[in-house]
Amino acid sequence: MVGEHAIYNGRVILTSEAVMPITCKEVQSGFYVYESLRIIDSYPVHLQDHLERLALSAKGIGLSYTVGDEVFTSWIMKLIEVDTIEQATLRIQMYGGPVTHVFITASKILTYPDSYYSDGVSAISYRGERLFPSSKTGNLLLNYVALEQAKRQGCFEALLFDEKNRVLEGTRSNFYAIKKNTLYTASDDLVLLGITRQRVLRSADILGLSVHYEAPDIQALHENYYDEIFISATSMAAMPLCSIDGISYGSDFKRTLAIKAQVRAWDRED
Amino acid sequence: MVGEHAIYNGRVILTSEAVMPITCKEVQSGFYVYESLRIIDSYPVHLQDHLERLALSAKGIGLSYTVGDEVFTSWIMKLIEVDTIEQATLRIQMYGGPVTHVFITASKILTYPDSYYSDGVSAISYRGERLFPSSKTGNLLLNYVALEQAKRQGCFEALLFDEKNRVLEGTRSNFYAIKKNTLYTASDDLVLLGITRQRVLRSADILGLSVHYEAPDIQALHENYYDEIFISATSMAAMPLCSIDGISYGSDFKRTLAIKAQVRAWDRED
Repeated sequence: MVGEHAIYNGRVILTSEAVMPITCKEVQSGFYVYESLRIIDSYPVHLQDHLERLALSAKGIGLSYTVGDEVFTSWIMKLIEVDTIEQATLRIQMYGGPVTHVFITASKILTYPDSYYSDGVSAISYRGERLFPSSKTGNLLLNYVALEQAKRQGCFEALLFDEKNRVLEGTRSNFYAIKKNTLYTASDDLVLLGITRQRVLRSADILGLSVHYEAPDIQALHENYYDEIFISATSMAAMPLCSIDGISYGSDFKRTLAIKAQVRAWDRED
Repeated sequence: MVGEHAIYNGRVILTSEAVMPITCKEVQSGFYVYESLRIIDSYPVHLQDHLERLALSAKGIGLSYTVGDEVFTSWIMKLIEVDTIEQATLRIQMYGGPVTHVFITASKILTYPDSYYSDGVSAISYRGERLFPSSKTGNLLLNYVALEQAKRQGCFEALLFDEKNRVLEGTRSNFYAIKKNTLYTASDDLVLLGITRQRVLRSADILGLSVHYEAPDIQALHENYYDEIFISATSMAAMPLCSIDGISYGSDFKRTLAIKAQVRAWDRED
């Protein structure tokens, strides 16, 4: 059953044993990198991409480890086998420091209601920038606090904007805006290099949109300048936004949903 | 014996049981606040100040809790009693979220060799600013990475400077520079409001130094503009710096050491 077991440094443990001492400096400091991926039909989707990004994240914060991709893969396959996993959201969480602690845990696959795609979801904007933007690390307090504020306002996501008022990314998503035949999004160096983001950009190209690496401006967003706005993440593919800070983005979300369909079609390809 | 037991939500546990699930969102996100204080002669030094700052930290990130100061105090006294603690460094670590998890742990008191005070210690500068500067939280990846870099260069501390090239604070300390009869330090809103910092500023006043709330500039530091530079923290009191980025600050550290002596004399007062 999904979530019964976990893997710790290659060993099968009960998920209830997936704990760390709160006195551990690396736990206290969030000195870890992680990946979140999907298991579909007992197959880890885009695993190689996730392992490559894990390596990039680790490099970005100087976290060294010796576990190879084949070993990671064998650990994941072991967990899929022991809990007979068909579908799940899987998390790799690797603490650095004097000893490397690698946990692989599985939970019920994260999906969203169809209405989120047909009606769109709402977002707030939040002033803040992620530290080490290209690395997926334990430095998540900003994301946590911003997302809590969004939830208190009944919103689904908080979009982070920088001191230049550019909306760079969400707390757990990348961000895009479409105007006429152009898709706008932040440049690679400023945001998390989403596995889904790569595929969103490929889809946009296939759909005849030209991609412009310029992060949408908060003022322009408030003035309803764009035709469609959306976010992307492993669990979401492309998800339309129907409002930001209460400003309505009514639309049939036609292009966002076409991108979503294309991205999902690639689930079985690596 | 110091470190044998810990307190978890008021209950005495073995320190080996002071663990949290790595799947817990708040653990993953560093959504916690903490305090580090000293027990001397079985007495928690400046406890009231630490509890007040804990409350300030929690407020700063929207972490709500219901444990009162008297309860915190009784938990600390319980730990002192059960492990017959005379001297220790004590840590309060409180996770927020749907359930509040409060840990109190004790370890061997953190002290430094006399030579650190007589000779000074060295530091590097590091570009970065703490998120929620007035809150002592689990958002410590910047501090961890900066301090690791300092250590790799054989240095004791990394001093964080902002986009205006102002040196605001260390990764685990406040920062000061003395020029003639003026002590320079960052303004309250930009840094952690150190319990020891308050006392450093009072000492400076007693010693006839006027306090100027202006963070020392990195260029001025590199040009040897100041007479003395030093850092402060609970474990250090005031500790002289003999170099920053390899620029030597030779001095007899006369005023820094006078401040240190004064700060330590206040250990028994609240």
